[in-house]
Amino acid sequence: MCEANAYLLKDDKEELLMERVDRVVPQNGEIYLESIWGQRKTIAARIKELNLVDHRIILEPAQEESN
Amino acid sequence: MCEANAYLLKDDKEELLMERVDRVVPQNGEIYLESIWGQRKTIAARIKELNLVDHRIILEPAQEESN
Repeated sequence: MCEANAYLLKDDKEELLMERVDRVVPQNGEIYLESIWGQRKTIAARIKELNLVDHRIILEPAQEESN
Repeated sequence: MCEANAYLLKDDKEELLMERVDRVVPQNGEIYLESIWGQRKTIAARIKELNLVDHRIILEPAQEESN
C-alpha cells in the first residue's frame, strides 16, 4: 500500500494529522483528507510539500499563505 | 516504491506529465515535480486531487482556477 501520513507544520513542528491517507483534495482553501480506513478530515490548510517515497504529506495552516 | 504518476487534466482528458513522481511542491501558483530519477518539471497548475493508493496525482491548469 502506498498511502502517506499527513502532517501539519506549525512553528516548525510537525503534528500528525492523519495516518495512511489515500485521497487529498484541495477545495476552497481547505484540504480534504481521506484515509484508507475511510477516516475523513477537512483542514484549513494548504499543501506545502509531498514526499511520496517517504510517505509524507506536509500541510501548513491556510492563514500563513505566502503567495 | 510509493511514488505516483502525475497527470494534467485538460478538457476532461488526462495527459501524463511525469512518471514516478517523488516530490510535489506547490509554489507561486505553479507545481514543482521531481521524479525518483531526478527528472524535474515546473507546471502552471494546481493540485486537483491525489489518489495515493492508485498512484495518481491529478493537476489542472492554473488558469482554470475555480476558487
